[in-house]
Amino acid sequence: MSDQKTIGGGSLLIAWQLKGKRVLIVGGGEVGAQRIDSILATDAHIDLVSPSARLHTRTKQFLGAYPARITHLDQPFAFGDSSIDVGAYDMVLTALDDNDLSRRIVEACRVIRVPVNAADIPELCDFYFGGQVRDGPLQIMISTNGNGPRIAALIKDRVKGALSGKEGEALVRVGALRAKLKERAPGVGGELGKKRMRWMSRVCETWSLEELGSLGDEDVGMLLDEGWERNRVPAPAEILKGSKGSFWGKGVKSAGALSASVVSFMAGVVFARVAFSVYQSRR
Amino acid sequence: MSDQKTIGGGSLLIAWQLKGKRVLIVGGGEVGAQRIDSILATDAHIDLVSPSARLHTRTKQFLGAYPARITHLDQPFAFGDSSIDVGAYDMVLTALDDNDLSRRIVEACRVIRVPVNAADIPELCDFYFGGQVRDGPLQIMISTNGNGPRIAALIKDRVKGALSGKEGEALVRVGALRAKLKERAPGVGGELGKKRMRWMSRVCETWSLEELGSLGDEDVGMLLDEGWERNRVPAPAEILKGSKGSFWGKGVKSAGALSASVVSFMAGVVFARVAFSVYQSRR
Repeated sequence: MSDQKTIGGGSLLIAWQLKGKRVLIVGGGEVGAQRIDSILATDAHIDLVSPSARLHTRTKQFLGAYPARITHLDQPFAFGDSSIDVGAYDMVLTALDDNDLSRRIVEACRVIRVPVNAADIPELCDFYFGGQVRDGPLQIMISTNGNGPRIAALIKDRVKGALSGKEGEALVRVGALRAKLKERAPGVGGELGKKRMRWMSRVCETWSLEELGSLGDEDVGMLLDEGWERNRVPAPAEILKGSKGSFWGKGVKSAGALSASVVSFMAGVVFARVAFSVYQSRR
Repeated sequence: MSDQKTIGGGSLLIAWQLKGKRVLIVGGGEVGAQRIDSILATDAHIDLVSPSARLHTRTKQFLGAYPARITHLDQPFAFGDSSIDVGAYDMVLTALDDNDLSRRIVEACRVIRVPVNAADIPELCDFYFGGQVRDGPLQIMISTNGNGPRIAALIKDRVKGALSGKEGEALVRVGALRAKLKERAPGVGGELGKKRMRWMSRVCETWSLEELGSLGDEDVGMLLDEGWERNRVPAPAEILKGSKGSFWGKGVKSAGALSASVVSFMAGVVFARVAFSVYQSRR
């Protein structure tokens, strides 16, 4: 009944929206730099509270590279300081060695229901971070719910290894195809909306991710001319004549298996040749 | 500098904590059932507001299977109704056909900063859901940030295909090993804490995930006796003598490649045999 192997005991994995929001990060050390990296994936503005002397090299690099994204408040966090009001933020992340200060910040956030994460104090966190894989619009998070960070890294490698690296591009190109289709057949919902959705689904079912990712701007036009306008789904080879990306992608993947078969076949030939020689020499 | 291929434009993927929390789901249709499924992965209690007549079959199954987890309020959602106060919840999810009612619920939540998701109205959501893969303590989320649900399903299949199915068990067994190690060498932090962490890391680096997942309770004791007590990392074969889990796991994986090679070899033999026959018959 449930799609899940396991009921209970887990977290709710969600994609939090931070466009136009403000995030406060308290602490600019190594963990603070990790937090900045996570928030840079979104479109939030970051206020970083940390004395300059305590900034990690990576934090300094972020401040230098993304001045429009990060405002550095060169001071320690102090309660009663009018310049830092946790209520002014949509999310607060502490990355401090001082657990007592972290706790007090979390309590202040909790009262006014500002989502908060305190590094290294899981029982105080509204949410945890996890291993992240990103490729354009594609984001993948791997959470072990606090069990074994070392294994989490191994699982992240497996997930990365499963991707061809074309998935993000496929999402972008399908988005472009959908946008162009909407220009040709505009309107929201209704019969036309359903027809658009059906045709898009058929294309995504027929074409591989790698083929979708290889769709150039001209290909998109041709796919609409030859496909949408004629109510059919052209084969990828019909449209992607120009670009060999798809073919080579598959070629590289199967080259290993092919060469193994060739070697086995040759071994069989040699084995048979030797066996016949032995057989004939003894006859 | 950043671990990420892409800066900006994304969501913040997080693992939200709901242990001991209360979640309100408004609407018990098909999407409502999906929401119940998502929350059942956590330890939150669910209040479901929906007239009985509007419950999806799957929702009814959830209500029957998890009565202690879900309280069904058999009524439509109405403002001013004293029995439904969004402020009493830690999270609110609407799954309604009535967009206006959804909007009003979201606005009520926003004022008091209760995290809220409104199905089909992305611009009103604090967070989105995504494709989920779970195996015990392991949870993976795939988000395409609203681009192409069809492709999201294909990517989910790729991620699932990359897992051996032993990852969750490996996390559980490493957790058991860590717990037993802490019994033998108790205490928080300090030199002993560092030594424990180093030894655990070495084990996780030397053993494969599948081997870690095959650790039985007796194996854990032997690994501590032969490993931790002697400050070394025994080879998996030294400890896992009894259990063949690891061997078979690998065996199944390579069986396909092996049989392909055998077939190629035999093909080579047959080819050579025929070639010799032809050669001899013409001589």
